Amino acid sequence: MGKYRVLIDANDEKGIVYKVSTVFFNCNLNILTNNEFVDKENNKFFMRSVVEGDVNLDNLNKSLRDVLPKDSGIEIIEPKKKNIIIMATKEMHALGDILIRHEAGELEANILAVISNYDELESLVSKFNIPYVTISHENLDRSDHEAKIIECINSYKDVDYIVLAKYMRILTPKFVEEYEDKIINIHHSFLPAFIGANPYKQAYNRGVKIIGATAHFVNNNLDEGPIISQEVIHVDHAYSWRDMQRSGRNVEKIVLSQALKLALEDRIFVYANKTVIF
Amino acid sequence: MGKYRVLIDANDEKGIVYKVSTVFFNCNLNILTNNEFVDKENNKFFMRSVVEGDVNLDNLNKSLRDVLPKDSGIEIIEPKKKNIIIMATKEMHALGDILIRHEAGELEANILAVISNYDELESLVSKFNIPYVTISHENLDRSDHEAKIIECINSYKDVDYIVLAKYMRILTPKFVEEYEDKIINIHHSFLPAFIGANPYKQAYNRGVKIIGATAHFVNNNLDEGPIISQEVIHVDHAYSWRDMQRSGRNVEKIVLSQALKLALEDRIFVYANKTVIF
Amino acid sequence: MGKYRVLIDANDEKGIVYKVSTVFFNCNLNILTNNEFVDKENNKFFMRSVVEGDVNLDNLNKSLRDVLPKDSGIEIIEPKKKNIIIMATKEMHALGDILIRHEAGELEANILAVISNYDELESLVSKFNIPYVTISHENLDRSDHEAKIIECINSYKDVDYIVLAKYMRILTPKFVEEYEDKIINIHHSFLPAFIGANPYKQAYNRGVKIIGATAHFVNNNLDEGPIISQEVIHVDHAYSWRDMQRSGRNVEKIVLSQALKLALEDRIFVYANKTVIF
Amino acid sequence: MGKYRVLIDANDEKGIVYKVSTVFFNCNLNILTNNEFVDKENNKFFMRSVVEGDVNLDNLNKSLRDVLPKDSGIEIIEPKKKNIIIMATKEMHALGDILIRHEAGELEANILAVISNYDELESLVSKFNIPYVTISHENLDRSDHEAKIIECINSYKDVDYIVLAKYMRILTPKFVEEYEDKIINIHHSFLPAFIGANPYKQAYNRGVKIIGATAHFVNNNLDEGPIISQEVIHVDHAYSWRDMQRSGRNVEKIVLSQALKLALEDRIFVYANKTVIF
Repeated sequence: MGKYRVLIDANDEKGIVYKVSTVFFNCNLNILTNNEFVDKENNKFFMRSVVEGDVNLDNLNKSLRDVLPKDSGIEIIEPKKKNIIIMATKEMHALGDILIRHEAGELEANILAVISNYDELESLVSKFNIPYVTISHENLDRSDHEAKIIECINSYKDVDYIVLAKYMRILTPKFVEEYEDKIINIHHSFLPAFIGANPYKQAYNRGVKIIGATAHFVNNNLDEGPIISQEVIHVDHAYSWRDMQRSGRNVEKIVLSQALKLALEDRIFVYANKTVIF
Repeated sequence: MGKYRVLIDANDEKGIVYKVSTVFFNCNLNILTNNEFVDKENNKFFMRSVVEGDVNLDNLNKSLRDVLPKDSGIEIIEPKKKNIIIMATKEMHALGDILIRHEAGELEANILAVISNYDELESLVSKFNIPYVTISHENLDRSDHEAKIIECINSYKDVDYIVLAKYMRILTPKFVEEYEDKIINIHHSFLPAFIGANPYKQAYNRGVKIIGATAHFVNNNLDEGPIISQEVIHVDHAYSWRDMQRSGRNVEKIVLSQALKLALEDRIFVYANKTVIF
Repeated sequence: MGKYRVLIDANDEKGIVYKVSTVFFNCNLNILTNNEFVDKENNKFFMRSVVEGDVNLDNLNKSLRDVLPKDSGIEIIEPKKKNIIIMATKEMHALGDILIRHEAGELEANILAVISNYDELESLVSKFNIPYVTISHENLDRSDHEAKIIECINSYKDVDYIVLAKYMRILTPKFVEEYEDKIINIHHSFLPAFIGANPYKQAYNRGVKIIGATAHFVNNNLDEGPIISQEVIHVDHAYSWRDMQRSGRNVEKIVLSQALKLALEDRIFVYANKTVIF
Repeated sequence: MGKYRVLIDANDEKGIVYKVSTVFFNCNLNILTNNEFVDKENNKFFMRSVVEGDVNLDNLNKSLRDVLPKDSGIEIIEPKKKNIIIMATKEMHALGDILIRHEAGELEANILAVISNYDELESLVSKFNIPYVTISHENLDRSDHEAKIIECINSYKDVDYIVLAKYMRILTPKFVEEYEDKIINIHHSFLPAFIGANPYKQAYNRGVKIIGATAHFVNNNLDEGPIISQEVIHVDHAYSWRDMQRSGRNVEKIVLSQALKLALEDRIFVYANKTVIF
């Protein structure tokens, strides 16, 4: 008996829950969990159901398509490990957190490779028998550097997500387009505060009493993509920006791993530069 | 066109969402929000829908009863102000928070009266033109004192909730039975830590680094009723128990008001000494 | 026997704690609490001591001045109620929270008056026998309107702080200069995110997962003054901006009251557009 | 020029700050940071100073002893890496977090060994070239098992702390006495709630809305030692106890690592079954 995640986004209309649940019922599917949300402002309906039963997936898809408004998004996903590639620079905490979770079997993911523009993290990654690829940006212009990274990524098949675990270089629109809604980044501030470089220094200079981290999908505008997860911690006047950085790492790694978990479990809808998360 | 909150709790079975949504569809009701939860351990299904449309409520009730398992709980509620009675002792913060929200029109409630075993709070309450009834416990045994309170409460019609806004006396099982699942209490600790008297002193003596408050329905066992809402704040070694008490008040009043709001909006199911909150 | 708060800010130099504590010792003062901080970046020393003893305050001041670097800030404060004026517009929660705390005797403050550009809050304020002054901005240009407010404020003697409890008009540099480091504002966002108008709408549009509030001293640049206190709460996709506004009020009022308490207890140093808080 | 942490605990008396700072001044020491706390209830004074200068440590110790009350605790510590032994059972998250921090050079510690009653974690630990010792408890009574562990620990010199990173066996009073105030444990609940086995199940059964973790020194009474650090997260009715366990791990590992950091930086005083933390 199969278990499936059914993701629907559609224009809202009366009876939509009735129609979808009728399809599930007629297909003899048992609903394990069901989450719905209607964005009244945009008249959009979102639904994530986990269903169980013997069903032909093409039939299920067709039946849903028959009852839903045209142009509805319908995804029927059989839970299995997704393929991810991690990009990092020199910092160990966010990458290390994912490696340990992976080792513990906590993640529904295969880590295909870690790509970095430095070799500092190779020693850590190689302990876990995961390929480590250093692609230095030195003596390369940005597009040539990214071309090499894209070549590397595309040498792997079926990459589901690219996780920027403190990858400290700005990506070009070309790169981002290549992997739309597939790149998850951790920004070390409570966005939209402190966009750009050195957010802890910015936070220190502003004299804030709380710092944070934001996991988000990457789009063309720096640090302006759809937010998945945010978390904060309190600081006070005694914190130097280095202290903020040190304490902030605890938040960064947890927030990134949470966002990755949500993505791997197909719990995130992206629309209107926002996320709906079930 | 009416707007209704439909609350269902039932033994879970395949097709239950289909059946309920079919009833809504056939009654020509539009679903505004829909929340469901299945407790697999106890095989229980919970649903809260806000629906809109022209419908005969008796018909709707009957239609739902026809499709749902026997002994299912079905409530169809037309949103309107509920009637509450507040009980307090001497402390002003939790009571004051409710009075201000009431004055601001934030609460879906009429405050019928405030009952206290002291007269300290009369000056505050009378500013808001709300009846204040002092029922002193002096020279009365507990059951006689409570009999007077019950008499006072029952002199009001259609009391939906009794809110214990730091009412500092223990209620007898008789009192609690009289108003089952209708009494909301704020306990000034993070339950189940520090049950009973002087939780801040207990917390201080234990040297905890976090204190909290818990809003819960009252049942026969002291501080052991179903938890509605909890919140905490950080403290450190420099806090005396009086400091904890002072800081804790901020949490107490917010948590109690949140729990009251959830109750007034019919968002709470109680079962197995727990709450399901939508 | 007197109890005094001694506040010192000075350029840091070796022996400064030794010198101050020698003065306290020679003056036969007992130190009840002692907080120090050195900002190494700016070479600034901050100290707040609560001392107890029989002492001539002029002598104490002179003795401290003799041992401290020239141009040091020295304040010796006898704890007593400070005088505050509250400015508000139409919203009740932040003002109401302060009124209830005042009524409960929690605040080291006399509320001299509440000034508003509308009369909506008069009914509430007058319950507490506090003067309410409506100064409408209609048909007045900004500077004429402010001139009237300044005239009203200055009709009271010894105003220590002006508390903007959701006063929804921007103050001119002239007004701010008049009351430098004396105006405490609550901004309904987690600054520096969402400066300016309608921060909840901004937050909703950005799709953040956390919202917050910031209490700060007001300076000439909108929402850019020294931050005193910040707090946040989690939200999700199901929150409309109105829901954010409603939930945010709980944070706003607590943060403003906390900041006010810190100011009333002389716990805040302001420098370099930041605060040191003991 | 040396840098030292000076830790003093003494019966409080007038002039104590003056006396200590006089000693520092006379020894030509510069105070980098200074923290003091007086527990008025117990008349105890605590101070942690970080000082810098050329000084003979015996002279400094003697000078401090000369001015402080008899039986005062005085420690002068030259910052250097401390030696720790980690004990674990089968879970990877808390151990893994420490290993990654160690690898990143974040911890002021040498990890001498990891001791476990199972061999599940050997594969992880050996990646980091840290000795892993399996001491199975099978077919051994508790005291024999602990004797073997003590033998192993004592085969290492100068062990500063023993870190229980989810070591799931109860320690006997004998073991605890052997390493008084040196054993740091992470308990997977918000103590004192849910002492003992299976706290997440207990929390689930009680229907709490917040779960937490507590790092504490171990003493003879199970889960009743001095608390160092606590943190919580929100849960709701949809969490099974397994979900609580999964989410709780994020808190457990961060809290344990924070507590360890505080210990390694000599920031913790233990007294009266509590901690003072600077």
